[in-house]
Amino acid sequence: MKRIDSIKNERIKAWKKLHTRKGREKAGMFMVEGHHLIEEALKSPIVVQVVLMTEEIVAPSNELINGCEMIVVSDQVMKEISETESPQGIAAICELPVSPAIDTLEGRYLLADRVQDPGNLGTMIRTADAAGMTGVVLGEGSVDLFNSKVIRSSQGSIFHLPVVKGDLLVWIQWLKEAGIPVFGTALEGASSYSAIEPQEQFALIVGNEGEGVSQEILDRTDQNLYVPIYGHAESLNVAVATGVLLYYLRG
Amino acid sequence: MKRIDSIKNERIKAWKKLHTRKGREKAGMFMVEGHHLIEEALKSPIVVQVVLMTEEIVAPSNELINGCEMIVVSDQVMKEISETESPQGIAAICELPVSPAIDTLEGRYLLADRVQDPGNLGTMIRTADAAGMTGVVLGEGSVDLFNSKVIRSSQGSIFHLPVVKGDLLVWIQWLKEAGIPVFGTALEGASSYSAIEPQEQFALIVGNEGEGVSQEILDRTDQNLYVPIYGHAESLNVAVATGVLLYYLRG
Repeated sequence: MKRIDSIKNERIKAWKKLHTRKGREKAGMFMVEGHHLIEEALKSPIVVQVVLMTEEIVAPSNELINGCEMIVVSDQVMKEISETESPQGIAAICELPVSPAIDTLEGRYLLADRVQDPGNLGTMIRTADAAGMTGVVLGEGSVDLFNSKVIRSSQGSIFHLPVVKGDLLVWIQWLKEAGIPVFGTALEGASSYSAIEPQEQFALIVGNEGEGVSQEILDRTDQNLYVPIYGHAESLNVAVATGVLLYYLRG
Repeated sequence: MKRIDSIKNERIKAWKKLHTRKGREKAGMFMVEGHHLIEEALKSPIVVQVVLMTEEIVAPSNELINGCEMIVVSDQVMKEISETESPQGIAAICELPVSPAIDTLEGRYLLADRVQDPGNLGTMIRTADAAGMTGVVLGEGSVDLFNSKVIRSSQGSIFHLPVVKGDLLVWIQWLKEAGIPVFGTALEGASSYSAIEPQEQFALIVGNEGEGVSQEILDRTDQNLYVPIYGHAESLNVAVATGVLLYYLRG
């Protein structure tokens, strides 16, 4: 098997650039670390180009890695390309997926308006997957989907359902034209979520950690909802609010 | 006002030890950072002994800080005692509270069995606060409540409702004697949460991120519940599941 032992290797240098959004977009690639996430990527339509492993690591099962380049690297090289403090000894270099074309809209959608924290976005995608959502749409100004912390906290869910970037104002129009009710989340001018009935199809829009969903978007929804605060907290974490609302709305 | 400019100052050295659980328990003190959290601590029954500020920071309002020692510190000293990468320039040294004595049990309780991740525990406490819970009980083996990440991710909720350490098996017995139904969370041998009705009073037990609630505890609950997974995720994040269940159960 091929080996790379030097952190000065050109490919290693190139892969290190995948740590930034700019580097990922320029290369058209992203990196995934750890056995579980790599297995999920291999089972998904994502193209895994290269799997890097340290010597003591067991490779993923043969049928899955068919077609990937396999490279053994030294611990030092793994540490160099890893974004975690304790690398798990296996990483994969994958192609950034092309957003799937949308022909017909139906089902349940989660729309994220400028969600900034990668842990929150990953947890929201995991929650949307668990709640059986059809897809997730990330508006402009959200943290990059292929940020390593987003991938990690999604626990592989980014490989389970379509997550696309889009203009939320355009999406709201499409959803309305398809007859799908669009719910924003807001603290003012909104109804308690329990005032509405669970829905066969719906879109839920959640927003930025500090500012919530932008007014421009709230003005275009069918209805805006809030989760009541019964105690003294100022608000719920956005991923927790997403869970409460998605599970309620799908009924 | 008093000033400390040297990181070799004995009090600074002593406060640095509050970064660890052992250090906090030995000193009987813990540290809080940032304006918002310090204001929340000052408004709560917690005893704030010392407030440390860098020169450019505006002190909290006078009525709140009545009785605290105020010390101006250099940026270097603030950096030395801070647990964050970008210190906010204000920190407070507080007394660890004595757990409130429980006379009569009534209301709604969240019990946490060996929750390990400080961000999860803090978010769960914030969620319990938002959902109007009466109190939170941390079983043995949970991350320390006064870990700085727990405090930060609770967004001040640890100062809003009683959070006590306790033996969960003993608590389950007390709750049952008080006529409060106790619900565990489990993937097997459990009912979908929506199969039961919202409850006036209840206790919900959530568990460790990987292993869930221990079998010993599950065997003693009135009923065990799960949140259905409709998609391909293996599970929900424990703080998200807590939110879905608390909001459903309180109705």
